[in-house]
Amino acid sequence: MNRQELIHQIKTKSSYLCVGLDPDIQKIPPHLLKYDNPILVFNQAIIEATSDICVAYKPNVAFFEALGLNGLQILDETRKLIPEDCFTIADAKRGDIGNTATMYAKAFLELMNFDSITVAPYMGKDSVEPFMQLKNKWAIVLGLTSNQGNIDFQKQLINGVPLYEIVMKTTMQWGTVDNLMFVVGATNEEEFAHIRSFCPEHFLLVPGVGAQGGDLEKLSQYGLTKDVGLLVNSTRSVIYASKGEDFAEKAREEVLALNEQMSSYISKYCSSSI
Amino acid sequence: MNRQELIHQIKTKSSYLCVGLDPDIQKIPPHLLKYDNPILVFNQAIIEATSDICVAYKPNVAFFEALGLNGLQILDETRKLIPEDCFTIADAKRGDIGNTATMYAKAFLELMNFDSITVAPYMGKDSVEPFMQLKNKWAIVLGLTSNQGNIDFQKQLINGVPLYEIVMKTTMQWGTVDNLMFVVGATNEEEFAHIRSFCPEHFLLVPGVGAQGGDLEKLSQYGLTKDVGLLVNSTRSVIYASKGEDFAEKAREEVLALNEQMSSYISKYCSSSI
Repeated sequence: MNRQELIHQIKTKSSYLCVGLDPDIQKIPPHLLKYDNPILVFNQAIIEATSDICVAYKPNVAFFEALGLNGLQILDETRKLIPEDCFTIADAKRGDIGNTATMYAKAFLELMNFDSITVAPYMGKDSVEPFMQLKNKWAIVLGLTSNQGNIDFQKQLINGVPLYEIVMKTTMQWGTVDNLMFVVGATNEEEFAHIRSFCPEHFLLVPGVGAQGGDLEKLSQYGLTKDVGLLVNSTRSVIYASKGEDFAEKAREEVLALNEQMSSYISKYCSSSI
Repeated sequence: MNRQELIHQIKTKSSYLCVGLDPDIQKIPPHLLKYDNPILVFNQAIIEATSDICVAYKPNVAFFEALGLNGLQILDETRKLIPEDCFTIADAKRGDIGNTATMYAKAFLELMNFDSITVAPYMGKDSVEPFMQLKNKWAIVLGLTSNQGNIDFQKQLINGVPLYEIVMKTTMQWGTVDNLMFVVGATNEEEFAHIRSFCPEHFLLVPGVGAQGGDLEKLSQYGLTKDVGLLVNSTRSVIYASKGEDFAEKAREEVLALNEQMSSYISKYCSSSI
């Protein structure tokens, strides 16, 4: 999916919501355990209940790999359940040298046909570029993550500039607004405003709204651009909204509630083009 | 495998060689293509020809994932072909937050029973620690990699100190010499001597000897400790030593040639304890 198509989806749905798919056999509704492949049944129900109203899905590859040796098969089948008009993100956080990165690009962007993959930047240019070589495919590079450990390296200052800013500015020289996004888990408005000061146009994938308690309005106020420019992820508050037989219905209700907020923020903060 | 067992293997085999397994259907001997699972046949032949004389194997997970949806199955079967007295490294370069890191630890260190996994440090402490929680299992954290892109971030100076040094020193506070190694692709002796000045005891996994042209004597001179403390990897020069029917035999010859050098460097540079 290219940038214009993504923006079109966002406009049509009046939402910039990405639903995270972190399927955990311990957390899915117990009544699903009677099926041969409860994880796939769970994912299918979530996708069918939400795909007309959310913009993107982000399966967390680790959760699939942890399912065992057929985990990637389930990931692939899950990918195929997602309609073409939804943007797909393989949250794999890969980062390896050219040759190997090319292998990963092939596995996720070609074989499984994801639109994008999350990429770790530590190894530098030759570990990121291979993910930006395919038409209408995207690298989503870790900029500032939202976990506690972001202080260990990402916020270390290099000549007064935090490492995450150097990573983002440097990576912006390797890609374009058409093939490069960033993971930005900023938790306060100053950081978001600062990031938009040097990265005004790239789409940002923002984790942690919903169960993780991020402030959706603040990040929208400081993160939205005239083209929206955000994909805000919610996982647990959507997919685990209920452990009952109504889990898919409750997931849809949670998406609708988030969309109501998002729609108002689009009107309020990026009225210029939408 | 614990540190003492690893050192015992190194002493017994008088070698610190790790054989990389990057199986590529384009590069394996063509006569293997007649088999149902040529990659597994290839891996098995390499392992059988070398496991009594090498210390470790490092399958590159990307190459398995790129094989398709049964790639991890082939990885698992390859893992099972490796005898217990060889140290096993899942070269996966994972790096993700706590919950997800725990999933990866489970997948590679428990389900597939690798001794260790390579880990990317960018997300900080909570992305590394979960790989050091299991008895006799190891995190091998990227310190200084050997690819061109290592100048983009790893060699950036923070108050005059390169990022890779900060990463290594910080990570050393989270683990011990019994559960933490580093990937160090230093290409000159000054770097190696410098790394040993602040990281004198941890095992270092060194890529790039053989086809990639690293200088084995120099890195041994500056990297070896009284407990050897190195695993030096060779991939292409071993596994692709020949494209003929003699590929396994040629792989063994290459290992023997590397071992001859390694044995002499052990005598020369770490005579104190071996």
